Formats: sequence, structure tokens, C-alpha cells
Amino acid sequence: MANSMRKAPVPTLERLATYLTHLTELNTRGVDMISSADMETRTGINAAQFRKDLSYFGEFGRPGIGYNVEDLVRRIARILKVEREQRVLLVGAGNLGSAIAGYPGLRAQNFHIVAAFDNNFSKIGRRLWDLDIYDTAELVSRNAELQAKLAIIAVPANAAQGVADLLVEAQVKAILNFAPATLKLPPDVVVRNVDFVQELAVLSFHLAADNTEQETAGR
Amino acid sequence: MANSMRKAPVPTLERLATYLTHLTELNTRGVDMISSADMETRTGINAAQFRKDLSYFGEFGRPGIGYNVEDLVRRIARILKVEREQRVLLVGAGNLGSAIAGYPGLRAQNFHIVAAFDNNFSKIGRRLWDLDIYDTAELVSRNAELQAKLAIIAVPANAAQGVADLLVEAQVKAILNFAPATLKLPPDVVVRNVDFVQELAVLSFHLAADNTEQETAGR
Repeated sequence: MANSMRKAPVPTLERLATYLTHLTELNTRGVDMISSADMETRTGINAAQFRKDLSYFGEFGRPGIGYNVEDLVRRIARILKVEREQRVLLVGAGNLGSAIAGYPGLRAQNFHIVAAFDNNFSKIGRRLWDLDIYDTAELVSRNAELQAKLAIIAVPANAAQGVADLLVEAQVKAILNFAPATLKLPPDVVVRNVDFVQELAVLSFHLAADNTEQETAGR
Repeated sequence: MANSMRKAPVPTLERLATYLTHLTELNTRGVDMISSADMETRTGINAAQFRKDLSYFGEFGRPGIGYNVEDLVRRIARILKVEREQRVLLVGAGNLGSAIAGYPGLRAQNFHIVAAFDNNFSKIGRRLWDLDIYDTAELVSRNAELQAKLAIIAVPANAAQGVADLLVEAQVKAILNFAPATLKLPPDVVVRNVDFVQELAVLSFHLAADNTEQETAGR
């Protein structure tokens, strides 16, 4: 792997995921070629930014001709390691867990939630969409078989660290955390936090009338 | 307002919101002073980054002594315009809308969801936690009275643009969008998109064994 690939900044990876969502849809509809200007129209991300983001990973597209959609889908999927199915554990089978498990875009990008866990005895043994809900206490033993490396935490804040510790013990290496809690994790486990309140606070800053010159908060 | 304030980059604003969450909790517990090193331990964000983020907005803290927690809460809340209650509309009263409306951190940061809207007749007229659920068709007329400037979209992708158009008509100026759709909005309306799949794709990139030198994806 080229050194430049390791150095790609996180915002570039976030944008690649956005490009991939749009390109996958275009590919499904049979669109062959696309220009960086078309991508700007679709994604709201500047065409120059699009070209720069791709440049971290080698040569793409041809000047004046554009980009082959199918090729771009395949290459971005490979960069993001989503070209093969990724198994995902979901911990928390409440409203949020249910919304996540039912999110239509997951399967389109090869994310497959393979099991849901909850510590509420009224939920254990029931189904969440097409998933079995297991006792959180079984997380380590279940994942010895399931072998998922990715997990989503959708439990209340006070339960999040306990769940994270179990996930680490279960050899999970990447966590998407929806709980408003800062998780302590070993250095080989990566985490991304989705914080609704943080998002609203950033929007709130942009609401003030005297901030209209600020660049937009869109991403 | 100082020009430097308008120039604060979005990631700085995101981190300010994270600091505020932690500082509010410390303040509630009666903690008086905190060092940037303590903040690093709590938030996982580098102490130098913390000091730099604050420096956009003037002088804070004293070398060797630290930061007064209550003062910092007040000043960051003022920067983010969350020192007063912000009224928020919620569109979509399904699992995701329910999870959002029940999110405990919203009230702590002065975000007040004042009404929920849905176009499903089995939901209209019922309650979502302590909220009335109104018909989405009434959004513009209801907000003439409610006067919310912030809204959250928690509807399926194919309904999102229609809802966004209504929100614009209702004079909403900032939208937190959970639908996997790119919204077309006038330039005076800011949007932030929460995209679960994008977050998972970034984590997926970091999962590969040969990427362990990559900086962590945490934020």
C-alpha cells in the first residue's frame, strides 16, 4: 500500500464515503460516465475537492472525458474496504437500535448487522427486524463464532463503557458510538462518536444573523 | 463580533460542543477549575488542540492555574449560541424520531423540541414522549406560532426533500438531516448530515491491519 494512502485525512475518507453512496446509486441506474462538476451538483462538495480527494489514491478519470462510474465505485469501495461484506454487531435494541437496524443504506454498502444485543430481559429472545436479540452478557461468546470486527453502540450513556469493554474483549476493532459518553479504549480500537447535541450546537452557531459570511456547515 | 470568530473552522465548533458537554457535567458536580491536561483525559482531544480552539475566541484560563469551569461553560455556550433555549422542530416520529426526542442530552444543552410532525395518519394526534405529533402538512402554519429556527429531519430518504422545502417555507434556517439524501436548500439555510453508513465506511477503512499507523478516527 502506498504511503500516501495511509496519510489520507479523515475528512477525505468521510467524503469518499459520500461519493460512494452517490456513485453506487448512479451505477445501479446504469450511468456510465460522470464529470467532477456533475459530482459537485449531486454531493454539494466542490469539484476541485473531489479531484483532490481522489488524488490521494492514484490516477482516476481522464481530463475532458470524466470518470467511469463503475470503475470509481469499485476503486473507492476497495479503498474504504467495503467491497466485501462487513459483519457488524449492534448493542442496544431500543428505539435508536431499531432505527439503525432498519436503515436502508447499510446493506447497499455491504454492512451486515449479524446480531443485536440488549440487557433488557423483555427484549432478549425477541426479534429486531430480521435479527435475533441476545443477552449482552453473551456478547463475547457469540462473537467468538460471528467474528465481527465492527460494532455499533446504541445504549444509554451510563451503560456505554461497560459495553465497550465487552466489545474489546470480543475482539471488535472499530466502534460507532451513539451514546453521549467518551469511551476509554485500547489504542488498536478506533471509535467514531455520533453526537446529536454536538451537531445541533454547530448549527446553532450558524443560526446567528451576523454569521452569514461563515462557510456552510454542510458536509 | 471579531472577524476571527467568523473564521473559526467547523471542526473547532464541533470540538467546542464536545468541551461544553463535559464542562457542563463538571459544573453540575461543583468542580471549580480544570487544566487543559484534565480536558484531554476527559475528551480524548489533545490539550494543545483545546488551547488552540479556545484561542479563536479570545483569552481563556491562566497559565499554571487553569480554567474556571463555570466561566468556560458560559463563554462557550455564548459562542455556540446555546446560552438561551433553542426551539427545535422534529419531522418524523418513527423509531429514529422517537430516539432523538428521548435523547437526554438535548435539554441539558438548551435544545427544546417543541413539536413533532409525521405524515402517517396512525401517528398524527398521538404523543411522542411529551410531544404532540402534528400532520406534516401543518408544518408551516404551526411554525408561524412556534417560531423555531432549527429542525431535525428523521424521515425516509424519499420524503426528505419535500420536508426540507416545507421547513424552508416555515422560515427554518438550520437543519440536522438524518435522511440519507442530499438536500437542495437556499444559501441562507445551513444543513448538517448525519450519515451512519458514512461513519461505518470510515471505520471500515481503519479496520485493515496495514492501516494501524493511521491516526485514529476518533473525534
